[in-house]
Amino acid sequence: MHALELITRKRDGGRLSDEEIAWAIATYTKGGIPEYQMAALLMAIVWQGLDAGERSAWTDAMLHSGDVLDLSSVDRPKVDKHSTGGVGDKISLSLAPLVAACGVAVPMISGRGLAHTGGTLDKLESIPGFRVGLEPDEIPPLLEENGVVMAAASKTLVPADQKLYALRDATGTVPAIGLITSSIMSKKLAEDLDGLVLDVKVGNGANMADPRAMRELARTMVQVGADHDTPVKALVTEMSQPLGAEVGNANEVAESIAVLRGDGPSDVTELTIALGAEMLLLAGMATDEGSAREQLTAAIGDGTGLEVMERMIEAQDGDPGVVSDPTRLPTAPGTEVLTAQDDGVVTECHARRIGVSAIRLGAGRETKKDRIDPGVGITVHAKVGDRVERGDTLATVHWRDESRLAECLAELEQAWVIGESATPPPLIHERIG
Amino acid sequence: MHALELITRKRDGGRLSDEEIAWAIATYTKGGIPEYQMAALLMAIVWQGLDAGERSAWTDAMLHSGDVLDLSSVDRPKVDKHSTGGVGDKISLSLAPLVAACGVAVPMISGRGLAHTGGTLDKLESIPGFRVGLEPDEIPPLLEENGVVMAAASKTLVPADQKLYALRDATGTVPAIGLITSSIMSKKLAEDLDGLVLDVKVGNGANMADPRAMRELARTMVQVGADHDTPVKALVTEMSQPLGAEVGNANEVAESIAVLRGDGPSDVTELTIALGAEMLLLAGMATDEGSAREQLTAAIGDGTGLEVMERMIEAQDGDPGVVSDPTRLPTAPGTEVLTAQDDGVVTECHARRIGVSAIRLGAGRETKKDRIDPGVGITVHAKVGDRVERGDTLATVHWRDESRLAECLAELEQAWVIGESATPPPLIHERIG
Repeated sequence: MHALELITRKRDGGRLSDEEIAWAIATYTKGGIPEYQMAALLMAIVWQGLDAGERSAWTDAMLHSGDVLDLSSVDRPKVDKHSTGGVGDKISLSLAPLVAACGVAVPMISGRGLAHTGGTLDKLESIPGFRVGLEPDEIPPLLEENGVVMAAASKTLVPADQKLYALRDATGTVPAIGLITSSIMSKKLAEDLDGLVLDVKVGNGANMADPRAMRELARTMVQVGADHDTPVKALVTEMSQPLGAEVGNANEVAESIAVLRGDGPSDVTELTIALGAEMLLLAGMATDEGSAREQLTAAIGDGTGLEVMERMIEAQDGDPGVVSDPTRLPTAPGTEVLTAQDDGVVTECHARRIGVSAIRLGAGRETKKDRIDPGVGITVHAKVGDRVERGDTLATVHWRDESRLAECLAELEQAWVIGESATPPPLIHERIG
Repeated sequence: MHALELITRKRDGGRLSDEEIAWAIATYTKGGIPEYQMAALLMAIVWQGLDAGERSAWTDAMLHSGDVLDLSSVDRPKVDKHSTGGVGDKISLSLAPLVAACGVAVPMISGRGLAHTGGTLDKLESIPGFRVGLEPDEIPPLLEENGVVMAAASKTLVPADQKLYALRDATGTVPAIGLITSSIMSKKLAEDLDGLVLDVKVGNGANMADPRAMRELARTMVQVGADHDTPVKALVTEMSQPLGAEVGNANEVAESIAVLRGDGPSDVTELTIALGAEMLLLAGMATDEGSAREQLTAAIGDGTGLEVMERMIEAQDGDPGVVSDPTRLPTAPGTEVLTAQDDGVVTECHARRIGVSAIRLGAGRETKKDRIDPGVGITVHAKVGDRVERGDTLATVHWRDESRLAECLAELEQAWVIGESATPPPLIHERIG
């Protein structure tokens, strides 16, 4: 087989066979196809797309490019959740322990912040001592013990994706439904799951601006899961304003602890329970949504969710004391408030702008080499539909560096629009799969 | 400037500014943009195209990536011809000396065979001793002396094209009008010309199968020439059957000598005169086509064209004796004939298949490392519209290696179709510019 032949066929709108895709991914991963030929093939795929069969074959080839977790020793049903990414999206932090408290095993391999969105690994690392770099053989016993592991992908897990993702990032070939689908699904299928729940974000804070593209992505991921005998459910959820009040790292961990203590913001709590219910249904731990929600609510009420979070943090070398005393989490020395310039109702609380503001502050990376400041962040006080008066606080900025604060505020000031009236958008738009 | 920004803008259908194109070509040529980013940009250009302004800027950036010939010391007007490539297209070999004999300077920088088409440099090298690798400073005195130079591009002439062409060849990014235009035009504009004539081939033996794309290419090249104050005329000419009777290398040189002796095939002679007339008009050596054709016909009749060819070969260290005695050119030891299986009229004499047959025989390269056998080739005896009887010779194959002969014949047998009736296609379809 020749890479050039595959490139020209895809360029001209043709399709690649399962064997060709398997050959291309395997050969590229071991260095047998140069980066420039793969770059041309990826751009041809952004242009011409991958059909359903090609998407499944591409996912399969990626999945088999390295090791796959073997969780056969774990007795519980194994279900995970993946979010396409948003601003203030700390759901994983409360969801994984809560679902584990209900008897499911959650082997959650997470990612870092990307563009204007935060990443679960970065948030976890704001817990003093917390270790995300687990070896594959550490995962089954931790899952047996606590029902939950939250970790980074090891170098041997889907190495094709690690190599391809870096290339896509550098060549403008990220926004292709087929490539996004196979990147996400290959990593999740490598977790040896019995089921997967997807949180597909739509709105200005989502990773692709076009909501139709995000819905198509939800459908293609459900289909690829079905092709690999792994049931997948997707919730299409709102991401035009941040989830909850906190955007950053340590402050998002604190908000997640609050959710498990029963006093979290209503949207974060509701989305945790909605996604958790899907996970319990997939795990066979509940037969209907009502009983699933009851189990989750009970695990908040009786503190078992919080206990599992505490045990997980301890098992991964973090300071478990943060759960009972969140003031042990890192903070930033300065605070600055942004106030409303008019009386009225918040008609926009722009997720993307707030996400970018947090990155400017140091809560995310502008370049790969940047270090994250875990204590800085933004607290959002007024969301869409809230009535405000001139001078009311819209946001509190927790900052360390004055020039970064200035950059943050320049962006943050544009995030709010005050108008006559507005209704809060629905949290969950659609259920797919 | 960032390469990624240019890639994503072009991918999304936007345009690149003159400054951005200049930066990208200059930076890529000196190694500052990695091959994989350029590959992605090239595929985005195949997809989204380059508009007229971008094509001119791209050509300009390529032109200034290295040295440009300085022919100010040459008194005569400087005009060149470029063909998009075909089968049996040996026109340059008779045309350049003939036009030089009429007083024009022809600084012809030529190429090698590509895909199924032959290359002028490969044909010239079948003349014993002929040297195509001239240094830039050798060119002006030779032009002064004989009015014609036929040589390869030096490494310092349009180095961006040499690097980009290799990348395009390996990444399936050759067929983009804007990239073809700028590749051809940058090299020709680097010759310091007063005018350029293009022979744009259409038909199965041309480099792009779609005749509309070839016509668009002709128009874009004329436009880029105008943007650079270099008048360009294009003839759109037939390439569904080979030009003349000979396809190969030494045999094509012999056929070109015959044209200058006045007994060449009518199509090769006619196209030589038609293109030559355009060159004389651009050079200001004639005021109308009729007088231009008369000058060219006279230069064939009185042998001055042949004399210039002889002097050019001698000046470039070749054996000038081949002109008066073409049997001094290399030959192949074996001959094999292909005969008609039916009575009738030739309705197809498939240029591309005959071109591929010649490559199989060793007259061209299957891979870049292959060496050309200058003596092998194919003589075509029956062309479209010719009446044949069963057993008549359609072609003679001049061969050296038995297994190569078999490969050649397997392809060659499919080149002819014998039917009821057919009219020879017109040689020249359109004049553009």
